[in-house]
Amino acid sequence: MVYFRSDYSQGAHPKVMDALIKTNEEHTDGYGVDSHCENAARMIRGLTDVEDCDVHMMIGGTPCNVTVIAASLRPYESVIAARTGHAYFHETGAVEATGHRIVAMDAVNGKLTPELIDRAMEEYQDEHTPLPRLVYISQPTEIGTVYGKAELTALAEKCREHDLLLYADGARLGSAMTCRENDLSIKELARLCDAFYIGGTKNGALFGEALVIKNRQMRDHFRFMIKRQGGLLAKGRLIGVQFEALLEGGENSLYFQIADHANHLAAELREGLKKMSVRFSGDSPTNQVFPILPTEVVKELEKDFFFYEWAPEKDGMTAIRLVTGWGTNEAEVRAFLDRTSKLLNARRS
Amino acid sequence: MVYFRSDYSQGAHPKVMDALIKTNEEHTDGYGVDSHCENAARMIRGLTDVEDCDVHMMIGGTPCNVTVIAASLRPYESVIAARTGHAYFHETGAVEATGHRIVAMDAVNGKLTPELIDRAMEEYQDEHTPLPRLVYISQPTEIGTVYGKAELTALAEKCREHDLLLYADGARLGSAMTCRENDLSIKELARLCDAFYIGGTKNGALFGEALVIKNRQMRDHFRFMIKRQGGLLAKGRLIGVQFEALLEGGENSLYFQIADHANHLAAELREGLKKMSVRFSGDSPTNQVFPILPTEVVKELEKDFFFYEWAPEKDGMTAIRLVTGWGTNEAEVRAFLDRTSKLLNARRS
Amino acid sequence: MVYFRSDYSQGAHPKVMDALIKTNEEHTDGYGVDSHCENAARMIRGLTDVEDCDVHMMIGGTPCNVTVIAASLRPYESVIAARTGHAYFHETGAVEATGHRIVAMDAVNGKLTPELIDRAMEEYQDEHTPLPRLVYISQPTEIGTVYGKAELTALAEKCREHDLLLYADGARLGSAMTCRENDLSIKELARLCDAFYIGGTKNGALFGEALVIKNRQMRDHFRFMIKRQGGLLAKGRLIGVQFEALLEGGENSLYFQIADHANHLAAELREGLKKMSVRFSGDSPTNQVFPILPTEVVKELEKDFFFYEWAPEKDGMTAIRLVTGWGTNEAEVRAFLDRTSKLLNARRS
Amino acid sequence: MVYFRSDYSQGAHPKVMDALIKTNEEHTDGYGVDSHCENAARMIRGLTDVEDCDVHMMIGGTPCNVTVIAASLRPYESVIAARTGHAYFHETGAVEATGHRIVAMDAVNGKLTPELIDRAMEEYQDEHTPLPRLVYISQPTEIGTVYGKAELTALAEKCREHDLLLYADGARLGSAMTCRENDLSIKELARLCDAFYIGGTKNGALFGEALVIKNRQMRDHFRFMIKRQGGLLAKGRLIGVQFEALLEGGENSLYFQIADHANHLAAELREGLKKMSVRFSGDSPTNQVFPILPTEVVKELEKDFFFYEWAPEKDGMTAIRLVTGWGTNEAEVRAFLDRTSKLLNARRS
Repeated sequence: MVYFRSDYSQGAHPKVMDALIKTNEEHTDGYGVDSHCENAARMIRGLTDVEDCDVHMMIGGTPCNVTVIAASLRPYESVIAARTGHAYFHETGAVEATGHRIVAMDAVNGKLTPELIDRAMEEYQDEHTPLPRLVYISQPTEIGTVYGKAELTALAEKCREHDLLLYADGARLGSAMTCRENDLSIKELARLCDAFYIGGTKNGALFGEALVIKNRQMRDHFRFMIKRQGGLLAKGRLIGVQFEALLEGGENSLYFQIADHANHLAAELREGLKKMSVRFSGDSPTNQVFPILPTEVVKELEKDFFFYEWAPEKDGMTAIRLVTGWGTNEAEVRAFLDRTSKLLNARRS
Repeated sequence: MVYFRSDYSQGAHPKVMDALIKTNEEHTDGYGVDSHCENAARMIRGLTDVEDCDVHMMIGGTPCNVTVIAASLRPYESVIAARTGHAYFHETGAVEATGHRIVAMDAVNGKLTPELIDRAMEEYQDEHTPLPRLVYISQPTEIGTVYGKAELTALAEKCREHDLLLYADGARLGSAMTCRENDLSIKELARLCDAFYIGGTKNGALFGEALVIKNRQMRDHFRFMIKRQGGLLAKGRLIGVQFEALLEGGENSLYFQIADHANHLAAELREGLKKMSVRFSGDSPTNQVFPILPTEVVKELEKDFFFYEWAPEKDGMTAIRLVTGWGTNEAEVRAFLDRTSKLLNARRS
Repeated sequence: MVYFRSDYSQGAHPKVMDALIKTNEEHTDGYGVDSHCENAARMIRGLTDVEDCDVHMMIGGTPCNVTVIAASLRPYESVIAARTGHAYFHETGAVEATGHRIVAMDAVNGKLTPELIDRAMEEYQDEHTPLPRLVYISQPTEIGTVYGKAELTALAEKCREHDLLLYADGARLGSAMTCRENDLSIKELARLCDAFYIGGTKNGALFGEALVIKNRQMRDHFRFMIKRQGGLLAKGRLIGVQFEALLEGGENSLYFQIADHANHLAAELREGLKKMSVRFSGDSPTNQVFPILPTEVVKELEKDFFFYEWAPEKDGMTAIRLVTGWGTNEAEVRAFLDRTSKLLNARRS
Repeated sequence: MVYFRSDYSQGAHPKVMDALIKTNEEHTDGYGVDSHCENAARMIRGLTDVEDCDVHMMIGGTPCNVTVIAASLRPYESVIAARTGHAYFHETGAVEATGHRIVAMDAVNGKLTPELIDRAMEEYQDEHTPLPRLVYISQPTEIGTVYGKAELTALAEKCREHDLLLYADGARLGSAMTCRENDLSIKELARLCDAFYIGGTKNGALFGEALVIKNRQMRDHFRFMIKRQGGLLAKGRLIGVQFEALLEGGENSLYFQIADHANHLAAELREGLKKMSVRFSGDSPTNQVFPILPTEVVKELEKDFFFYEWAPEKDGMTAIRLVTGWGTNEAEVRAFLDRTSKLLNARRS
């Protein structure tokens, strides 16, 4: 069975694994206060060109999102997000569990716009309505699209206009940064956001995300918040070690090589399918591909390939999701394209 | 200044006030465990024809909504409501403060439909998404419309299909029950819902709502929940005394007389304005009237009458909200109609 | 049956009732934004000599405590209180419901001391432990004792030392202020605390407490918090009207007359019982009296008088609680003393 | 520097590491739904002799505690724990963050007793007080002591008497099970508790704990709760793989070998120090040792050895904590004993 199921179906990239093995017997202090975490933080400050920030090694994306939001908002404040945003759509109400509303907006291509922010603000009126305080976006979005430089700049300006914090979920940040369409550097992203995280889990780590917080108010007593939300890892250095391995070399580091590799193979899938006149759901330039195929073809493909059906069948067609990762290889991509091509041709003839 | 601002701008109906005065020096036990609360509960069981239920005397509508939801849901469960629903739109995230999401649906005329329930259920997929458990509706809605018998029956069936509890916010229940368009008796409402409340604050009481819970699971340890949510009134008998006064006589009681009075005057406002060719926002048959008037006329009216501007100006017109209550009188209605008529005529000539 | 059950077993003092009747037909804006609430706030500013404060008309004591705490603390912060403190002991975890721990200290006579604060601070160590931020006291305490001027001053200094907010629950503040032992004026109390409330429910109002917040940080967006916690009364002016009636005349107002009356009758109970060689649980100088009587006598008294048994029987004796209020009269006190005297004499002979 | 700082200062036991390396390139489904997690669960069912249970692979101890409590309690319910219990003392109010009180009891040797449960239950009275519902214990306790079979049986019976759930935090369960004083098998522990977890982080895993839930009500929708509390690991199989490696062989598995090794070295430390007439704080038979040494000696030792000072200095003496783990070796133990012996002798001469 060939997996295009997710970018977290395997363990860590071998070089990350090596770093864990190499440091395994070291003794360090616990809870992320150790030289590896410090060193990884230093590398991130260099990479993002943000000296004045806190960097926290977090165990996962949901803990990042929830802890940032719970730490940044007063009780009566709320979050604005796209309805497709992970924090709204895929975290079982973990944000609401901390007492805050997510105002969910129907967004085109998974992206919030200044207009959507304005519309969300209209729900707010006075002490009878929650006061929006933080805008949650994902770069890339959950459906693979990316905010361009102009888009993110406009969003950041709109946030400042309404006194809103801007936070970016970077679960697949590497994929956004290395895709062809991208015109936004990680330095620019860091400049425009109040906080964001660099995702490890979906880009070569066993687990772990590096959370960067610039805004001073959001930084206050943040480690208390990590612990309170259940996210302080005893052997915190594990995340530091992995990010050292991933980020060594900055913009040319393994982190971006992995993402580039996955993007490249996703592009190959996309282009191969386009040649077969396959259409796509959405317009993802990153490591997720959403082809719409005849349901019968999908059912045949499922015998050898493992992937998500993305949406309910419509008119005999089913949209699926293919994801590439650090361990995906060219042969797997070709096998998928060949098989699909044969199945489509068989139908057409 | 004549008030059409709200149905809670005055104190209590004189007969309610009399009951409070008459019982003022009585000693009773606190926290709603007294003969007045018991008697009011008995009257409500008769009125609604529901013997097997708990009745709680609550201090306000938000405490009703929040306590019911917090008591009925497990932590990962959510509520479905119209975006205009009070619990979503006008309670500063009090529901989310208890850790639960409200899935807010764009609803026509403020009313949820079986189709909207189905659509809300689509957001739910598996353990990564909150599980909807309770449907929150208002009868009448916040924009004055009412669910007809067929509509509520269909909604209740849809709820049963998805194992959803049905809860009705009856802040203005009297107004719904006594409006001309209504074809749903309070007995039928009680039969179709798992819980609902009979609003006092907006229908002649100083404050207080009578919450009726049929569903056994929702009833469990409910008084603990009232206290935990801060809503257990020391002199709880005050609410019991008021509902005794309001509900004496059942379907012919003061409660429905007050509502009928307010509806009657609202209808007079509506018909008077219609004769002036005024159009309305929405289609409220209850004690709220939403005429759309030239902004200049609105500004003139505001010199003598006190009401809400309901929506931002559009094309020189402004929608306003007029609300009638137990204390509104015919002279006030006529004064408003006369003044409006003169102002509109002056503009037309 | 004669009631010594509580100071909230009757309605409002007749003069408070008169004020409600007199203003009943007035129209005002809702939610505590009206001239009565403003006027009451002005009177309180004068009475307490605190110009720079916010005054909120709250529906009850639990909403005061919970809203103040939820508004003042960041999520990882905690409260220090006596184990007998109302917010810990009698509110069903309403504070914890907002996500905050109460560190409960065993306190002598129901009073926190600087030493107890120090001991509570020892539980705090670093980001693995909640950070105490607010000290909750009651004046008088739940067992009727009062903080003297020197005691409260020492407590306030200790709070400043640890950067702790000092908040006083004044459910029976009148009783503390007018008892013989008291050497602390309301102005001094107001000077020493960051926030406190002047209780109405237990001192002649139908319901309602006047919350005074001096600390600027605690004041921020407080009305949002009241609404979010479900405590914003639609006809908010009802509380304003009652406090106008209670506080007219400042230090000589009805509020203090009622408290003095109740204290006076409690003292009469206390002294009458002392003459019968009855001993007491605790040392309350306020409107609560805790005599320890032979259980058989208690059982006899319960036929004509209604009061709480305060603690489980021990060695054939039972401690009971007698509470006096605005409506208690001399005849009731004498009846109790006479009956007790006879019962005790009968046993002794 | 020799580490006796904690049992989580190194990475994983080499055999655990090997298992991770060996399975690294496997593709599996995410979120703990994979053959490794299933297999580990099967092994645990065998080891504990509990067929009818759910086993969840959790990322850490705090997530276990918080998720179990939040899933098991209704909103008004509370937890009983020793004041030294990890969930009370070292988790920054993570339990209260879910809205539940922990009733903290002063416990001798860190252990709850039936008498302490009774005393905690006395705080509960009626709907004005939280209702205790779950008893939280740690086996071994945070100060290294263990519940004997008779003690745990008595506690479990007391829990049944009060309708309380019994939950055991087994962060160092291996150490309890393999210490000399232990007379309680893991099967008996499993029989007596409603839920407990087998700790991996402190016994040879990189991270991860295996949570076992027998009680049906506690099991309901538990995966929703894990996700909601932010604890669902994307690459969940990592924990499954580690527990497979740790538990292969059941009662003779690596898991118990590691614990036995650590206990053995701790005993060596303890006995060596005893020979030097050193006294101890508490009476831990597990892998934590709490000698009380002259503060000067402690300061000298800190030059070469890394450990916690456990309590503030008293009379020139300081209690310290020494912890042994999978990676501690005999040479390190001897070095510590030798150095201490020399320092103590130097002082005595």
